[in-house]
Amino acid sequence: MKDAVLKSLKQARVVSGETLATELGISRTAVWKHVNQLRREGYRISSSPRRGYALDSVPDSLLAAKIAEHLQTRVLGREIVTCKEVQSTQDHAKTLALQGSPDGTIVVAETQSGGRGRFGRSWASPPGGLYVSIILRPSITLAEVTRIPLVAAVALVRAIQRHTPTELRLKWPNDVLIQNRKAAGILAEMSAEVDRLDWMILGIGVNVAITSAALPPDIRQTSTSLATGSTRTVQRVQLLRDILYELEGALEMLQTEGFEPIRKQWKDQSDMLGKHVMVAGKRQPIKGKAVDIDGYGALILECAGGIRQRITSGDVFRVGAAHG
Amino acid sequence: MKDAVLKSLKQARVVSGETLATELGISRTAVWKHVNQLRREGYRISSSPRRGYALDSVPDSLLAAKIAEHLQTRVLGREIVTCKEVQSTQDHAKTLALQGSPDGTIVVAETQSGGRGRFGRSWASPPGGLYVSIILRPSITLAEVTRIPLVAAVALVRAIQRHTPTELRLKWPNDVLIQNRKAAGILAEMSAEVDRLDWMILGIGVNVAITSAALPPDIRQTSTSLATGSTRTVQRVQLLRDILYELEGALEMLQTEGFEPIRKQWKDQSDMLGKHVMVAGKRQPIKGKAVDIDGYGALILECAGGIRQRITSGDVFRVGAAHG
Repeated sequence: MKDAVLKSLKQARVVSGETLATELGISRTAVWKHVNQLRREGYRISSSPRRGYALDSVPDSLLAAKIAEHLQTRVLGREIVTCKEVQSTQDHAKTLALQGSPDGTIVVAETQSGGRGRFGRSWASPPGGLYVSIILRPSITLAEVTRIPLVAAVALVRAIQRHTPTELRLKWPNDVLIQNRKAAGILAEMSAEVDRLDWMILGIGVNVAITSAALPPDIRQTSTSLATGSTRTVQRVQLLRDILYELEGALEMLQTEGFEPIRKQWKDQSDMLGKHVMVAGKRQPIKGKAVDIDGYGALILECAGGIRQRITSGDVFRVGAAHG
Repeated sequence: MKDAVLKSLKQARVVSGETLATELGISRTAVWKHVNQLRREGYRISSSPRRGYALDSVPDSLLAAKIAEHLQTRVLGREIVTCKEVQSTQDHAKTLALQGSPDGTIVVAETQSGGRGRFGRSWASPPGGLYVSIILRPSITLAEVTRIPLVAAVALVRAIQRHTPTELRLKWPNDVLIQNRKAAGILAEMSAEVDRLDWMILGIGVNVAITSAALPPDIRQTSTSLATGSTRTVQRVQLLRDILYELEGALEMLQTEGFEPIRKQWKDQSDMLGKHVMVAGKRQPIKGKAVDIDGYGALILECAGGIRQRITSGDVFRVGAAHG
């Protein structure tokens, strides 16, 4: 009945409680209750005693039916699991993958209580962000797996760019930056035999409309949100559809054209190449000039003495020019 | 009380029902019930009206307390999950790893209804075999992961060899053969970020005492069991303890000495090197002479024209000498 009330509100610009009650064969009190329920779900419904109810805006909540409605993909997002709150979309997707959920299944949540980032770090996940994990079962070898985060990064930038005129930049391997602050990130995890990929879970987190105050203090200086300094409102449902569409396209391109076009797009989208950087990881930090991305997504550094180093893991920081 | 009855039976060579009843302060009927319960659990207890009960043999069932009793490891098997029947010890261990079970946790089952082998194949798991999955959280890079199946294979051979004088041979990468038939196998799976290992699950299946008839027809010709052609009975509990002990030792050796000693042991234990083989996998079959194992466990083939090929995945078959 709540859905019937919503349908009537969507059809009429303004409709009185009495008309709604008659139309649906329920009491005016019942109409009022359903309207209030819709308001709690995020629908903005104004009311005036003389004219009645008007639907001012629909919520940007991540409902499976809404996501599926205008989805243009063939595989990604054809199975949708939505959660209001989950510990981690990534872990939930892993459990589903283990149970055999098909290629392209997605898990979306409004917030995560234990969101995860790279290297087992936490990923702050307050309301207003987009948190999605995508189950992929690609036909690639284990050696090719390292390309996927860069494929996803290129797709993510293309999707976000449809929603904002702000310049987006990629930081190796797969952070999306706005004015040198992180606006989105990717976590690529996999399950495999030592010589055969079983499945991957691509976790994508986008700070869509998150105020600095909603983030932990230690990342406020290095993070940003699509809403910051923008007057446009980004609809998360449409952003999610665009991410799935662009990712599917990029994965198809990888299959048909190989990694080269993706590599080129990644390089175009990054301003890191030619700059002096430091890579911090488990081992000794390495300094050098970032000169290239290779055919498996590794970062190539030119270090002191012209020696080239291939970086496959770690965090990259811009530094001043190396001396000596 | 059942445990008290068992303890008394273990202490005395023969003990009358009356003595047991008095000792434990229970009725003779209660003694009789506990004895019957123990018999159902696999204990062989003979009884004679005049002399009383005698414990003839204890069952070789995989009970956690029994496994733990004489276990000499520091980490492996310190958490034990036992199942009478499970779909797959491997999948069960994955779920536990996902929930945070510690390094060394093992899952053991008497039988598996959906046991898995390499490349997603099934692994026949009738009663009488040993089916164990071990959660490992080693401090190694993803590139080093391919060494682990060979480390496990070397440990598995050492453990099995304690229980049988039969000559054991390794087939690349990690099958244990007796007279060219498979007696045990290893499945190494992992969960990882694309640049960081999270955990591995090492699945080990040993055909301990399995008749050919208990196996599916299609593998009867290529499989064997430790019991075949042997008069010795292999105690699975002790075999499992030995596997855990040898594996822990081999993993420690890998950490302290590197892969070289393991590589040498693997080569000593295999009769494949120097032989002509064919490797079948996802791609075109490759023929050549197996000449070496490299520092990451890959098989090195010398193909036509002296070209060396590095094999990281697939099934290896012995063939006649290549022509041309």
